[in-house]
Amino acid sequence: MGKIRRVNSAPLGFFDSGVGGLTVVRAVQDLLPRENILYLGDTARLPYGSKSPESIRRFAQEDAKFLVGRGVKAIVVACNTATAHALPMLRENFDLPVIGVIEAGVESALSDPAAGRVGIIATRGTVRSHAYQHALALKRTGLIIHAQPAPLLVPIVEEDWIDHPAAELILKTYLEPLIEKDIDTLMLACTHYPLLVPVLRRLLPDGIRLVDSATTCAEHLKQELLRLDMLNDQEREGTLEIHLTDLSEEFETLARRFLSKSSGRIQRAVLA
Amino acid sequence: MGKIRRVNSAPLGFFDSGVGGLTVVRAVQDLLPRENILYLGDTARLPYGSKSPESIRRFAQEDAKFLVGRGVKAIVVACNTATAHALPMLRENFDLPVIGVIEAGVESALSDPAAGRVGIIATRGTVRSHAYQHALALKRTGLIIHAQPAPLLVPIVEEDWIDHPAAELILKTYLEPLIEKDIDTLMLACTHYPLLVPVLRRLLPDGIRLVDSATTCAEHLKQELLRLDMLNDQEREGTLEIHLTDLSEEFETLARRFLSKSSGRIQRAVLA
Repeated sequence: MGKIRRVNSAPLGFFDSGVGGLTVVRAVQDLLPRENILYLGDTARLPYGSKSPESIRRFAQEDAKFLVGRGVKAIVVACNTATAHALPMLRENFDLPVIGVIEAGVESALSDPAAGRVGIIATRGTVRSHAYQHALALKRTGLIIHAQPAPLLVPIVEEDWIDHPAAELILKTYLEPLIEKDIDTLMLACTHYPLLVPVLRRLLPDGIRLVDSATTCAEHLKQELLRLDMLNDQEREGTLEIHLTDLSEEFETLARRFLSKSSGRIQRAVLA
Repeated sequence: MGKIRRVNSAPLGFFDSGVGGLTVVRAVQDLLPRENILYLGDTARLPYGSKSPESIRRFAQEDAKFLVGRGVKAIVVACNTATAHALPMLRENFDLPVIGVIEAGVESALSDPAAGRVGIIATRGTVRSHAYQHALALKRTGLIIHAQPAPLLVPIVEEDWIDHPAAELILKTYLEPLIEKDIDTLMLACTHYPLLVPVLRRLLPDGIRLVDSATTCAEHLKQELLRLDMLNDQEREGTLEIHLTDLSEEFETLARRFLSKSSGRIQRAVLA
């Protein structure tokens, strides 16, 4: 069966366990301002990072089904944990392009031929999936890879405690083993972490390159849409529609922070 | 319609968003060692503390239904957020005793006639529900009440970072406004917090009384079962059966920490 031809003006579908994936949306809006975007955040069941692979796959399947049911032309899995566990399954189950955050990050990390000692910070679920470690190892032999679970960073970002002295102490504890291992590249393998870049730059020795999932995923998506001739060529700026499985004031506040602007009206989603 | 007479050897049903409610189970096992216990942790959708009242009520209804379907003689809502939002609804929908963690804590806090300035630390959801503030105000007029959301404490406890210097900094930030207001009583309004008691004692000025949900709920439950003539009079020690909606190694490790002993075999629960 051939691929169904989709309308280029159809929205790009994004999903994440919560609103962290909006850092990816923000990067895509910067790079592809004409694209319409439909975003689903599964805030009722967040976080995914600490849950089992079976549950994460079930959640991802339901999230993708919601987006496909609304006619998206491609799916961006804007969640590292879901990409790590569910990407092959989603590609098998849905007949449209499915783009994750991992391949793009790995390509970008290795775009520097000197990269040889790669550190990764991520949720426990992402680290344990070995998805980044595996993708890196497949692309370049002889890499030294160190993955560090950093489970307290998501709550620190969500509480907006990035400038609290506790955040620095927590980050130092996570970074110390990576610095000791003399990494030259640090991958921020969670969509919440781009907000930590300023404090990371301050705490890391000079010369360590930071690679974040959000901007690398946006670049990868642009290349894919170009290749498949699926870019939206409308004149006007694209729209953004946000659906969350649980609505609350905190999620709306967080959404605005991750987008760096107003999020518009947020709707409640009911998954089948 | 009269209450259905239930068998005293039937299990007590407990539910919580995760495994934190096992601190209540542990206190009940100490006080009522002959009771059989059926525990449901909704680990697939935890935490409840940051989610909306509507979602919390829906989750609580499904959790209680699971327990009632397995023949429990009473329900203990071993979760402050669910007690705060769903207790009246559960009492209306189910024809058996439903006991929450709030009444018991409030009674215990006010058992000291000198208690006049009460501090509360809890998740954002519990603070925002005003359930503790309301229950306190109903029981004693003229109380000064200060509720402090402390959302980073659950991840700190779950990561076992209680002795990390960051934990002390975070706690100090949360406690400072309460100490400034000269509280005489501090209510630990989250089932995770009993594990923080040693560090709290160190950081708080002498003379502030700590009231935790777990032990006060166990005492309240015992009184209720006595009053209703529903205590289990079997000779042997009661059993404990744990069901989680998401299984993972971390949840099992945490369960053991909250129980201070082996948790036995943990089963996966599917909610209707």
